[in-house]
Amino acid sequence: MPEQPLIRTLKEGDAFQGFLLVQEAAYKISAKGSEYLDMKLGDASGDLKAFLWDVRAVEGDMNAIRADTFVKVKGAVSSYNGRLQLKLDKARFAADAEIGDFAVFFPVSQRPVPEMLAELDAYIGSVRDPWIRQLLAAFFIDDATLRAAFAQAPAAKSMHHAYLGGLLEHTLSILGMAEGACSHYRNLNRDLVVAGVFLHDVGKTAELSYERSIGYSDAGNLLGHIALEADWISRAIGKIEGFPEELRMQILHIVLSHHGRLDFGSPVLPKTPEALLVHYLDDLDGKLEVMFRAVQEDAGGGSWSPFNRALERMIYRNRWPVVGLSKTEQS
Amino acid sequence: MPEQPLIRTLKEGDAFQGFLLVQEAAYKISAKGSEYLDMKLGDASGDLKAFLWDVRAVEGDMNAIRADTFVKVKGAVSSYNGRLQLKLDKARFAADAEIGDFAVFFPVSQRPVPEMLAELDAYIGSVRDPWIRQLLAAFFIDDATLRAAFAQAPAAKSMHHAYLGGLLEHTLSILGMAEGACSHYRNLNRDLVVAGVFLHDVGKTAELSYERSIGYSDAGNLLGHIALEADWISRAIGKIEGFPEELRMQILHIVLSHHGRLDFGSPVLPKTPEALLVHYLDDLDGKLEVMFRAVQEDAGGGSWSPFNRALERMIYRNRWPVVGLSKTEQS
Amino acid sequence: MPEQPLIRTLKEGDAFQGFLLVQEAAYKISAKGSEYLDMKLGDASGDLKAFLWDVRAVEGDMNAIRADTFVKVKGAVSSYNGRLQLKLDKARFAADAEIGDFAVFFPVSQRPVPEMLAELDAYIGSVRDPWIRQLLAAFFIDDATLRAAFAQAPAAKSMHHAYLGGLLEHTLSILGMAEGACSHYRNLNRDLVVAGVFLHDVGKTAELSYERSIGYSDAGNLLGHIALEADWISRAIGKIEGFPEELRMQILHIVLSHHGRLDFGSPVLPKTPEALLVHYLDDLDGKLEVMFRAVQEDAGGGSWSPFNRALERMIYRNRWPVVGLSKTEQS
Amino acid sequence: MPEQPLIRTLKEGDAFQGFLLVQEAAYKISAKGSEYLDMKLGDASGDLKAFLWDVRAVEGDMNAIRADTFVKVKGAVSSYNGRLQLKLDKARFAADAEIGDFAVFFPVSQRPVPEMLAELDAYIGSVRDPWIRQLLAAFFIDDATLRAAFAQAPAAKSMHHAYLGGLLEHTLSILGMAEGACSHYRNLNRDLVVAGVFLHDVGKTAELSYERSIGYSDAGNLLGHIALEADWISRAIGKIEGFPEELRMQILHIVLSHHGRLDFGSPVLPKTPEALLVHYLDDLDGKLEVMFRAVQEDAGGGSWSPFNRALERMIYRNRWPVVGLSKTEQS
Amino acid sequence: MPEQPLIRTLKEGDAFQGFLLVQEAAYKISAKGSEYLDMKLGDASGDLKAFLWDVRAVEGDMNAIRADTFVKVKGAVSSYNGRLQLKLDKARFAADAEIGDFAVFFPVSQRPVPEMLAELDAYIGSVRDPWIRQLLAAFFIDDATLRAAFAQAPAAKSMHHAYLGGLLEHTLSILGMAEGACSHYRNLNRDLVVAGVFLHDVGKTAELSYERSIGYSDAGNLLGHIALEADWISRAIGKIEGFPEELRMQILHIVLSHHGRLDFGSPVLPKTPEALLVHYLDDLDGKLEVMFRAVQEDAGGGSWSPFNRALERMIYRNRWPVVGLSKTEQS
Amino acid sequence: MPEQPLIRTLKEGDAFQGFLLVQEAAYKISAKGSEYLDMKLGDASGDLKAFLWDVRAVEGDMNAIRADTFVKVKGAVSSYNGRLQLKLDKARFAADAEIGDFAVFFPVSQRPVPEMLAELDAYIGSVRDPWIRQLLAAFFIDDATLRAAFAQAPAAKSMHHAYLGGLLEHTLSILGMAEGACSHYRNLNRDLVVAGVFLHDVGKTAELSYERSIGYSDAGNLLGHIALEADWISRAIGKIEGFPEELRMQILHIVLSHHGRLDFGSPVLPKTPEALLVHYLDDLDGKLEVMFRAVQEDAGGGSWSPFNRALERMIYRNRWPVVGLSKTEQS
Repeated sequence: MPEQPLIRTLKEGDAFQGFLLVQEAAYKISAKGSEYLDMKLGDASGDLKAFLWDVRAVEGDMNAIRADTFVKVKGAVSSYNGRLQLKLDKARFAADAEIGDFAVFFPVSQRPVPEMLAELDAYIGSVRDPWIRQLLAAFFIDDATLRAAFAQAPAAKSMHHAYLGGLLEHTLSILGMAEGACSHYRNLNRDLVVAGVFLHDVGKTAELSYERSIGYSDAGNLLGHIALEADWISRAIGKIEGFPEELRMQILHIVLSHHGRLDFGSPVLPKTPEALLVHYLDDLDGKLEVMFRAVQEDAGGGSWSPFNRALERMIYRNRWPVVGLSKTEQS
Repeated sequence: MPEQPLIRTLKEGDAFQGFLLVQEAAYKISAKGSEYLDMKLGDASGDLKAFLWDVRAVEGDMNAIRADTFVKVKGAVSSYNGRLQLKLDKARFAADAEIGDFAVFFPVSQRPVPEMLAELDAYIGSVRDPWIRQLLAAFFIDDATLRAAFAQAPAAKSMHHAYLGGLLEHTLSILGMAEGACSHYRNLNRDLVVAGVFLHDVGKTAELSYERSIGYSDAGNLLGHIALEADWISRAIGKIEGFPEELRMQILHIVLSHHGRLDFGSPVLPKTPEALLVHYLDDLDGKLEVMFRAVQEDAGGGSWSPFNRALERMIYRNRWPVVGLSKTEQS
Repeated sequence: MPEQPLIRTLKEGDAFQGFLLVQEAAYKISAKGSEYLDMKLGDASGDLKAFLWDVRAVEGDMNAIRADTFVKVKGAVSSYNGRLQLKLDKARFAADAEIGDFAVFFPVSQRPVPEMLAELDAYIGSVRDPWIRQLLAAFFIDDATLRAAFAQAPAAKSMHHAYLGGLLEHTLSILGMAEGACSHYRNLNRDLVVAGVFLHDVGKTAELSYERSIGYSDAGNLLGHIALEADWISRAIGKIEGFPEELRMQILHIVLSHHGRLDFGSPVLPKTPEALLVHYLDDLDGKLEVMFRAVQEDAGGGSWSPFNRALERMIYRNRWPVVGLSKTEQS
Repeated sequence: MPEQPLIRTLKEGDAFQGFLLVQEAAYKISAKGSEYLDMKLGDASGDLKAFLWDVRAVEGDMNAIRADTFVKVKGAVSSYNGRLQLKLDKARFAADAEIGDFAVFFPVSQRPVPEMLAELDAYIGSVRDPWIRQLLAAFFIDDATLRAAFAQAPAAKSMHHAYLGGLLEHTLSILGMAEGACSHYRNLNRDLVVAGVFLHDVGKTAELSYERSIGYSDAGNLLGHIALEADWISRAIGKIEGFPEELRMQILHIVLSHHGRLDFGSPVLPKTPEALLVHYLDDLDGKLEVMFRAVQEDAGGGSWSPFNRALERMIYRNRWPVVGLSKTEQS
Repeated sequence: MPEQPLIRTLKEGDAFQGFLLVQEAAYKISAKGSEYLDMKLGDASGDLKAFLWDVRAVEGDMNAIRADTFVKVKGAVSSYNGRLQLKLDKARFAADAEIGDFAVFFPVSQRPVPEMLAELDAYIGSVRDPWIRQLLAAFFIDDATLRAAFAQAPAAKSMHHAYLGGLLEHTLSILGMAEGACSHYRNLNRDLVVAGVFLHDVGKTAELSYERSIGYSDAGNLLGHIALEADWISRAIGKIEGFPEELRMQILHIVLSHHGRLDFGSPVLPKTPEALLVHYLDDLDGKLEVMFRAVQEDAGGGSWSPFNRALERMIYRNRWPVVGLSKTEQS
Repeated sequence: MPEQPLIRTLKEGDAFQGFLLVQEAAYKISAKGSEYLDMKLGDASGDLKAFLWDVRAVEGDMNAIRADTFVKVKGAVSSYNGRLQLKLDKARFAADAEIGDFAVFFPVSQRPVPEMLAELDAYIGSVRDPWIRQLLAAFFIDDATLRAAFAQAPAAKSMHHAYLGGLLEHTLSILGMAEGACSHYRNLNRDLVVAGVFLHDVGKTAELSYERSIGYSDAGNLLGHIALEADWISRAIGKIEGFPEELRMQILHIVLSHHGRLDFGSPVLPKTPEALLVHYLDDLDGKLEVMFRAVQEDAGGGSWSPFNRALERMIYRNRWPVVGLSKTEQS
């Protein structure tokens, strides 16, 4: 796959030739009764509308062009109503094999994966409780497939951290807060909290499908990530001889209760301090990520974000400047 | 343990000597400053208040007499304010070893256990799907411990079928209705429904403690019966080579979703016809049992039951007589 | 009205001439500033989009063409974006009088009405309680108008059984389940249950309007079917000399409480076993019908139905095959 | 029945002999093992605890003394812990026939019934719409039994206006406010509002039982006052030849919707201005009555009423004085 | 600004030249790839769609034409699909300075402002409590800026009285009802009620922005009108020497509690009769305004209003005629 | 006031003479008809039941002995039913003036007040934003009365930190967590968070009354602590010339929204990252305090705490031991 410009860098008048991900595609009828192709095309940096007014200009199998496939297109960037769009001269379905690096086309975490995995390893290394360390190693070190999936999965379909690597980034962020909380509240069992944070969303690797755009798997819809990961934990513990039943129950309790409310899908309420903490830090981290994103997106767009569905409110974007920091530090 | 009359058969003026279960016990101070023992004693047929006015008449360790232990008592039945009570001359703690048959002291299902187990076996035998039959056999035939527990456990702490054998009785009752429903709605997979009904509450054998009065185990409070049984099913399936993943998901889905609502503790909603059916029949059977009991209890006590906490309403006790049945058939 | 092909049987390239029901109609402005007619046309077998690009080709009164009227059209079937549509050459308003059989244009129950009415009669004949039999006969046998409406009405506007004959089909389906339930739970008064099922939705014949597409009548919106049928029952009973007040109350109670919850429009909760049963079987039957339809519709469309508004979830369409049935039996 | 002092007028040391209503009664066991009679006795002015320490002093049938019967007692008023109580020397069951005037023993409205009935008649006389006037006359003038019941019934069991005559008082109070509202909002149909107010709670005469203490009748529990009065209205209208169907629907709509929310027992929401108004004025009048009572009761008891169950809050009792009124006007 | 016809008076075929408010504007792409301007234009009497098919006919800065600006347009009224629309020949952005009277373009109260202000003054003059009169004068008489804003602000963004002058009209309407209520319920402190009504929504002058179309200010979104007005009241009282703390608390309580429920944004529940009354009359007045508007709008459009979001129901438009009024009085 | 032993240190058989706080007091009637005094007496270390069997042994004014007063008593410790109690020989009302140090009788924070105030001062000193530092100084340094109240007030009546000094302890604990969160989430404005934490509950100094047992003040019940502190903040800012309006809004927003939900009494939802963080850390800190207390109380009493009303669940008391800590560190 040759070099091609990122969508975010395009300007009116630019020519564009290259591969793009089809996010939406429909053949529509114009008022003249002729057919045209109306698409939303994207890469990891953004997306724009694209039109091919003469469907005869589609090469190859027209029906292969569908959401979540790739197209190769040629056209020019124009601007209508303040938004850029692509006016295409040609379009054809592109097989996955033609695509060098999927990561170019899907949003990904801004933190490099190797750096995040090193942090994950360090956390596991810091666990002093031998049972917990063994359990976490079984998941995230010994099981290479899971380790890879855990590094690739998003944290959600749309609510928060909805990009590749988001699950790992979210997990590490909670761990950072948890470390502080365990220093602050001295009665917490830090290693138990670490276990809970690591495992609380691991089932999302199977609940979600994220080879292309993020969706739910059948197992995700039928069982949900909480039941999936509870099953995995139980099996992994079953392979560790002598694992204490009491500890097993307390870890499973954190995982089962981490949504904090029955109507949010947890079959039990948090009943230990560690379970309560994991619930709060998980919830806080997800919601703050949403807020920061809302504040930063379209920063020029007024004091208020659009209505945010995840938080069911608009977010206030005006930031009170931090005193004692230079402008560049404040970004 | 010698023969002794059932509480239900006692009349004012009777002498009573024998063993009883302590349901409540407290040492209280009379207005004269003297101490007396105030208890609620029971057997499977009922319970009554019992008083020992002179604590010096307690033999042995006074503090051993607590809720959920047994006492041996001697006294007489008197009647105050329309209710019978025991006025005791003597009382002493009785060790479990002295009790011949615990079943004498706890409420039990009115259906004989062997009859119910035979019905259970017949249902398993009727399953034509080989995977489902194997799974149910692994639970209820091959695992003698679970089979015994399944025959002994209550279906709930207090909501419905809250007596020994209640879980099995409730399961069989749902199966009876399910059989009819699968004939009626021809698109249902009957064997899948049977699997769902058998397994939907099997975790209650571990969620509840019922050696004496019914309570929750630690695992019950921390994990709940849904997570417990999902774990067991997953493990049991893991031991059946070649068990289809699709079937595994659909069975687990029925179990996880059978409370029908997230705020009632199901982490997912029923999304297959079989899961929907199991939810409705389970719910209906439990609520009808409550209603029938409310109608029958204290039948002389007016048109209305007391406020029923499980159903959050009073139940109307007046029954419109069935035409074409003799009086005796109608009871 | 001459023979014409069903919409379901049309193929790309077919010519079509005949009458169709207008489900939606709008005159729109094309980008060229010219006006065209954009419609959704249907018969009982399905519907498709239809366009008449030159409004001058509309014969007669253009404004008469509105939702819930008929049109006579002439055109050809084309295919755009994987969906068939009609490109019209001509269109004109068609008076009701031109339409031979309305049933050709509205979805109807798959069960023949005479068969269903025979089943209804058999149920009434099976009632042994003379008061109940008299009451049901007054409604469904003696009152020919109501009998006809009951055989024609849908069971709902959109939630379930939303087609002509749906109310009768739904009622009979519940009766089938109720029969089984009354054998299973021996304490139920079967005739009282039968009365409740027959009458629980009879008010829908007046709550809904269904001469054409289904809607609500003024009385339906102002009073609702529960109040309507309670009124009818009270009047019908008033004409049966000596009808027992106790039975009157119990029947009205079933009807008033059959939605099961106050916030679902029942002014009282079910307080008798019969009322509870009718509520559950009604609810179950409606929801199962929705599920089965979702499973069957667009069967090729993936494992999951679209989000279903009536059930507020997607339905899983993958069916685990019934063992011991040949392929044809499983459809 | 000879003259006897009202409970409210009793002082410590007074002797008392006379009839009282039994509100609660129980035979209890003292610490000495002897039996005593513990009662709460009342008349319309208040109630107090009463003890008979030697049950042998009960004359006649001990078990006849129950809640909602009368007793004849003899004893003296003493004061314990800041509250007056009766120490009895004698007590016996008193048959209803011995009681001259039940009204002496149950709380009643402070407005004289004849005055209220005159006001009711005036309202009916003021109705200009002939159909509405006829309907109201049928209920409240022509039907002497209903008129009497309407003048005697309470408005609720415990929420508000829970005393004899409360229903009529509450109805008239709403009418007073409604009169003002109809002058203020000129688009309201005043006669329709008057009909709605008159009829909105008339079913309470049958929903409640109030010969003695207030309770629910069987019909009340099974059907509720809304269904009861809808039935009555429908029947009454059925007897008025030519009564317009449109008006019938609008009146029934006001009655059915007057609780304002489905979860408060109205099967439909208010959808006309008149229905909305009746709902608000009814709700306001009931809640204000509760507040005023809370403010006035135990006026010396601090700034706050006890937690009020009807309103789910405490009421603030401190009143900001009205300027321009003398002290006596402000009470 | 020269005279121009009101939108409400336009008929098909009329030419139109003049200024209009842009309610919505978008540059869209036609199927031919050409750009057109699609707008919704309005004045205080109504709005209609407007199209300029050739964007080259836009004079001046195309991008200046946005929602909440003005345009000068020239074109003709045509009718499509039963609705009028404007087909434009020309359009240009119009600066605010060109607009003579904003009130021509935004919906306003039908009551003249001077008349309403005179009524406001009369109410303040009628207050006998000197503290309350002083407080109200400080707000509405002495503070000319607030007085002006209070006369101009709408009562809400969209729920009710959503037009200029709506806040004052709503306030006076509640006062009218309150006057009647205080005569009816003699225990109410009328001056306290008047204070509560006057101040309950005064913060809306700052919560909403209404120079052009109605929106929320930053302070409105961050603090809400209840917190805003509580702050203002506290400051105003701080400037009145000797203002009694008890009265201060009771006034603030009415304001803080006037939404009646915590989940509707009141941090406390109404706990005094005056607070309860203000809540009910405020709620009633807003909802009645919505109903009357729904009844009157599009009076020819059938018995039912469209689904009303503020009330979450459809409104019944059929009015039962008032007897004794001539036709003209009934409008 | 002479030295006296703490209640926690008393053993059966000890004599006791000294002052105690009356938590509950009632004169009751014994079965013999004699009167006795039944009290619950406490100091900061605990409480126990106390009985004076002969009321004639009460010296001075019997009625002065009420909840929240002090008594001087003389008696002996006895043990009944496993609990200690006081059998009194004498009791008399004790005036407040006789009590040396109220702190001896009410539960207090385990952290010394001077240490906490030093920490508070350090936090204020660390604020780099000059406006925020000035505002906090105005509250907690310059206003000696508020500073004293802030150091003395509890954080709640019963939910969490319900003891003297609890408000300050709770505030500092949140600040500790907030410090960590602001290092972790780099986009937060730390000084703004600090302001929000300091001020979020400061109104509790006036909402609660805590000279004796904790209750609500009139202002607390009528206005609530959120409205109280919003008023104070607004006034304090009003005295700081040039205080930026943007910062004022953002601080008030944090305070108004810190309950996180409208139905929990916040009139607005958190709409800035800082407001969201303060809400979560406040909520977490309160709930963890409740959990830790539940875990530690009655540590010998089984795996589960009693049902906890603040958290609406039982708390699991079994702690999984921290690895690498000696036993003494783990307490």
